[in-house]
Amino acid sequence: MLFGTNNQMHGTLFCFVWQIAMIILFGVFIRYDEESDAHWVETKAHDNITSDIENDFYFRYPSFQDVHVMIFVGFGFLMTFLKRYSFGAVGFNFLIASFGLQWALLMQGWFHSLDPQTGKIFIGIESLINADFCVAGCLIAYGAVLGKVSPVQLLVMTLFGVTLFAVEEYIILNLLHARDAGGSMVIHTFGGYYGLSISRVLYRPNLHQSKRMQGSVYHSDTFAMIGTLFLWMFWPSFNSAITDHGDGQHRAVINTYLCLASTVLTTVAISSLSQKTGKLDMVHIQNSTLAGGVALGTAAEFMISPYGALIVGFFCGIISTMGYIFISPFLEKTLKIQDTCGIHNLHAMPGVIGGIVGAITAAAASESVYGKQGLINTFDFTGDFKDRTVLTQGGYQAAGMCVSIVFGVVGGAIVGSILKLPIWGDPADENCFDDEVYWELPDEEEEHQESIPPILEYNNHMIHKQQDL
Amino acid sequence: MLFGTNNQMHGTLFCFVWQIAMIILFGVFIRYDEESDAHWVETKAHDNITSDIENDFYFRYPSFQDVHVMIFVGFGFLMTFLKRYSFGAVGFNFLIASFGLQWALLMQGWFHSLDPQTGKIFIGIESLINADFCVAGCLIAYGAVLGKVSPVQLLVMTLFGVTLFAVEEYIILNLLHARDAGGSMVIHTFGGYYGLSISRVLYRPNLHQSKRMQGSVYHSDTFAMIGTLFLWMFWPSFNSAITDHGDGQHRAVINTYLCLASTVLTTVAISSLSQKTGKLDMVHIQNSTLAGGVALGTAAEFMISPYGALIVGFFCGIISTMGYIFISPFLEKTLKIQDTCGIHNLHAMPGVIGGIVGAITAAAASESVYGKQGLINTFDFTGDFKDRTVLTQGGYQAAGMCVSIVFGVVGGAIVGSILKLPIWGDPADENCFDDEVYWELPDEEEEHQESIPPILEYNNHMIHKQQDL
Amino acid sequence: MLFGTNNQMHGTLFCFVWQIAMIILFGVFIRYDEESDAHWVETKAHDNITSDIENDFYFRYPSFQDVHVMIFVGFGFLMTFLKRYSFGAVGFNFLIASFGLQWALLMQGWFHSLDPQTGKIFIGIESLINADFCVAGCLIAYGAVLGKVSPVQLLVMTLFGVTLFAVEEYIILNLLHARDAGGSMVIHTFGGYYGLSISRVLYRPNLHQSKRMQGSVYHSDTFAMIGTLFLWMFWPSFNSAITDHGDGQHRAVINTYLCLASTVLTTVAISSLSQKTGKLDMVHIQNSTLAGGVALGTAAEFMISPYGALIVGFFCGIISTMGYIFISPFLEKTLKIQDTCGIHNLHAMPGVIGGIVGAITAAAASESVYGKQGLINTFDFTGDFKDRTVLTQGGYQAAGMCVSIVFGVVGGAIVGSILKLPIWGDPADENCFDDEVYWELPDEEEEHQESIPPILEYNNHMIHKQQDL
Repeated sequence: MLFGTNNQMHGTLFCFVWQIAMIILFGVFIRYDEESDAHWVETKAHDNITSDIENDFYFRYPSFQDVHVMIFVGFGFLMTFLKRYSFGAVGFNFLIASFGLQWALLMQGWFHSLDPQTGKIFIGIESLINADFCVAGCLIAYGAVLGKVSPVQLLVMTLFGVTLFAVEEYIILNLLHARDAGGSMVIHTFGGYYGLSISRVLYRPNLHQSKRMQGSVYHSDTFAMIGTLFLWMFWPSFNSAITDHGDGQHRAVINTYLCLASTVLTTVAISSLSQKTGKLDMVHIQNSTLAGGVALGTAAEFMISPYGALIVGFFCGIISTMGYIFISPFLEKTLKIQDTCGIHNLHAMPGVIGGIVGAITAAAASESVYGKQGLINTFDFTGDFKDRTVLTQGGYQAAGMCVSIVFGVVGGAIVGSILKLPIWGDPADENCFDDEVYWELPDEEEEHQESIPPILEYNNHMIHKQQDL
Repeated sequence: MLFGTNNQMHGTLFCFVWQIAMIILFGVFIRYDEESDAHWVETKAHDNITSDIENDFYFRYPSFQDVHVMIFVGFGFLMTFLKRYSFGAVGFNFLIASFGLQWALLMQGWFHSLDPQTGKIFIGIESLINADFCVAGCLIAYGAVLGKVSPVQLLVMTLFGVTLFAVEEYIILNLLHARDAGGSMVIHTFGGYYGLSISRVLYRPNLHQSKRMQGSVYHSDTFAMIGTLFLWMFWPSFNSAITDHGDGQHRAVINTYLCLASTVLTTVAISSLSQKTGKLDMVHIQNSTLAGGVALGTAAEFMISPYGALIVGFFCGIISTMGYIFISPFLEKTLKIQDTCGIHNLHAMPGVIGGIVGAITAAAASESVYGKQGLINTFDFTGDFKDRTVLTQGGYQAAGMCVSIVFGVVGGAIVGSILKLPIWGDPADENCFDDEVYWELPDEEEEHQESIPPILEYNNHMIHKQQDL
Repeated sequence: MLFGTNNQMHGTLFCFVWQIAMIILFGVFIRYDEESDAHWVETKAHDNITSDIENDFYFRYPSFQDVHVMIFVGFGFLMTFLKRYSFGAVGFNFLIASFGLQWALLMQGWFHSLDPQTGKIFIGIESLINADFCVAGCLIAYGAVLGKVSPVQLLVMTLFGVTLFAVEEYIILNLLHARDAGGSMVIHTFGGYYGLSISRVLYRPNLHQSKRMQGSVYHSDTFAMIGTLFLWMFWPSFNSAITDHGDGQHRAVINTYLCLASTVLTTVAISSLSQKTGKLDMVHIQNSTLAGGVALGTAAEFMISPYGALIVGFFCGIISTMGYIFISPFLEKTLKIQDTCGIHNLHAMPGVIGGIVGAITAAAASESVYGKQGLINTFDFTGDFKDRTVLTQGGYQAAGMCVSIVFGVVGGAIVGSILKLPIWGDPADENCFDDEVYWELPDEEEEHQESIPPILEYNNHMIHKQQDL
């Protein structure tokens, strides 16, 4: 093991070496863009910009902060549902997101915005949003392997994940010129299949040995709802953060807001139906209610119309909840994919649906609905793509979705093989889902005085202590 | 029972049928408004709008997201204080808000913004805020019946609540032309009395049978503080979200910020005074600290002046805390109103105070304080109302408050009677405030290994299991 | 004791008298500024402002709300890590922040924006941000004495803290004309040393008597992560909230975002290294990850360049974590400073680093990097200061840092002496870190039925009850 053992030097070294590499690469490549540079006062005069408010900062900053909350609180707390893996959920999420976003700024910069004259990458608020988006793909993948990998494995997974992300994003958005502002394909489909594929390679036949750790407790489920709600509430910001100024952002918010509301109702309906007792299952409420946001990632900025958004949400709530009931057990038994958080139901499947919805909506676009200029703006039919028809666009959207699946599955298989090497200090089967392995936990003896029953717990504690020695 | 029993089909059907109805109605009626439609590029050119930043989206989106957080995290977590009703608090809040906001868009659309030419409702960011506001009224009412009703009853309550809300809002804002940007009357007074009235009709003389479930535990009180703080912090956004652009929003924020700060001090003072030991009571800190925001809902956009805002907060902290100490027990004993969250002290009373403060402030407005154009802008003395005086306006404000009370009390009585029908699957007296009835709870046997004392709890658990079978 | 005893009248009186004084002083001094006054429509016409969006409100409101969240949820929940002091952490934080921000508006107003003609203080959104900032200094100080003082002591500490803050801020920003938008010096260095100095004076040699209360439990650590993450995520808003419109805010966000990401990696690295077992320590993750934000408080708006921000974060993560491991024990043993939350490592030291970084970055500024006008704008070289060179500016920055240290240390010593008077009702050594002293806690007997082991806990409870009588 690296963190959490006497070999911790490896984990520490990994962090240090990587952070120093980041500093050097940032020194060589990264500069402020013209809207965040002190020379902006000259740019403004030159471009006849009359007010500071036209700085892109004011169009995007509120959305950026919401996305930032989704990445750190949303994803982090969503995964705290396990009874004894809350530190790992929130803490490792924090670590790999902070790590990934730096690498993402470089990778996305090299692929999307390297200035050929100066050889520099110029960053602004939109770059920060894109870095957060890129990291989201890796955090999704974390959900599949939650509790079963070491932090160093997570760092490696993030390192390769960000790299793959930047490449598939370049292919989908730049080469295919597909639209995917909220990342149904680029973020969710890729991230979902990347994580599932890794989990498949890392299959643990004896995972039942840590069965006692796999459930939730009452308060850990409540903590998870913090994650769920911040994701749910801010998803309109996620899907609109980098869409076109003005009506583009406005429309993406309306669509996502409606779609998610619809998802909640069908999730509840199916969840109740799924139990003999008719009771609701927290797993569904925590996860499937979010599927609508995923599935509108591509089409949120299109004129899908309010009722169209409701329809997407309607089916996503059903499909995602059904996924938890029927597909997850099937994946585990038949395909040997152990998916801790059920990302197949929350990200992979809804992501694919989102890709399809996007392709259909694009192909069905018309000048009567969008207006002549509106159509050009929405699909960016300019430059090399000025003669592209909506039907062709629909085809490229579909192609984009295939690219994201391929990158996820193949990339995950390769990275999974690397992570299978016996050098990364992953926890033993019986120690999975247990913070004890990587965290100094509060001393249980102290805790007794607060709320822990003495006999049973104390014995467990003794065992742990002995393992540590 | 509907959810939570073998009759769950009813609950499921309710969700499905309603969501399908929403899709159809949205298909018929709801369209993007001109600022969220892809044709906006043409509108801009036509109206000589020079920059995308003048889209209403950028004036309102940050406030909208704050309001959204208040609705889902604020109201949801505020109600998690009960030891075993956190799932119901957060989860059912989530369900009925998602359900209600769709219905609100239609109801408010029909009453406020149905385009007579096209027969369509055009929605934008302000519509989303208004829908959230409308839902807030129903969530307030939920506070009174928390733990005592079934989810289907909540859905029915929300269905009628939104309907009544849209009508009273139309009467107060459009017919009476009262101002109520933060909804002291329209939202809080109505929602408060609506909930209290329902709770009166549903009076349970044997509620003491679930007494063991009515307290909080240490961590559930801490969860509730998440709700309190997000409500408190974002209340300036709530009261300013739909006020006039520019100084209107700016002033509403300042007033609300100050008023709430003042409320905290007097709440603490009275809370300490109320206990023989001088200790503070979490119930007061969680709730009464918010009363100032409620009471400034009408006057926040007026020139009430900073010290005026402090005065309102000063008295609201006192009155609301006193309410918890003296009035709530009285209401329960004498009027047979069982008010789980004390919404009478947090919403109904402060809402009425807010209506009165609004009426007085409006009646006292003058050109010297507002400026000639400022007065017209603030009170919207245009069109049919261009000759209205401030005194008359004060009178109409007071009338508006009466309308909201009447709608709350009478509407609640009628809806309460409907909910009293023995078909909705409400929990038995001894099962109130218990998530066990509607939720699959984490398996206590597992939990034992973490923190539950074995003997006592296990027996309870066995009993529950037997009830379920 | 004042709160929490039969002498509670004193605490109550303090709140009442003070709040009434606030109302009177606000009545005399505080008015809306021109952008929040209803006359703004005339100001707009007069100044040829074409759009409402140019109201300062729209430049600053999203940042304000983020800062507000940091003050109430961030600071409040960060301190909930103790097993039985969550109510005190969140609740007293709530109280003193609400109290302090009113006093801050007056104090900062008198020093910074008293209009000489009218004798009034005109407030707008920037004033609210500054008041929140001022309060932050006092909340930092609270971290040092958490669990060891009474609420009345906290109110007194805040009263003097805000007063001292306003004076040192006036000296540093106005007289020395130092730049400190994110408050490395003005907020963090001052607040840190103020708290440490007070804690030194209030040294309790027998604090070990409450040792059983000094640890965390699993869920209290999870609650604390809510505070950590909201502070971490919104720190870019903190450092950019009052910087120049346009590129100034934009750049401050980018720098802070990068710096904090870098801090997380080195914090994790050192934390793992510090334990024989290589496990991570929650104390470090909760606190040291934030040090980068503190240390960039001064330089965030400068052209420190992205890699410069990463370097600052790199070292702050190391130094702050080392502080928890080596310096805190040293301070306690040798200097008798008991620092509950380790504010020396999170605020004082990183604040000083921030002051130094700011001085160096200022001294190294050049026209080639900033542009001629950019340099003037960034350092505000106008009016009396139009001939100041960057080197001189660097010197004044360094001088500013010394002022903040002196005010913190000396001010804290004086205020500490006042707080040492035996009239404030501070808890006995054996009752420190225990909410029982000041809060009505949930009845443990009830709780037994949920999750508390009967024997041990019940006895404790009996003892408490007897103390109360």
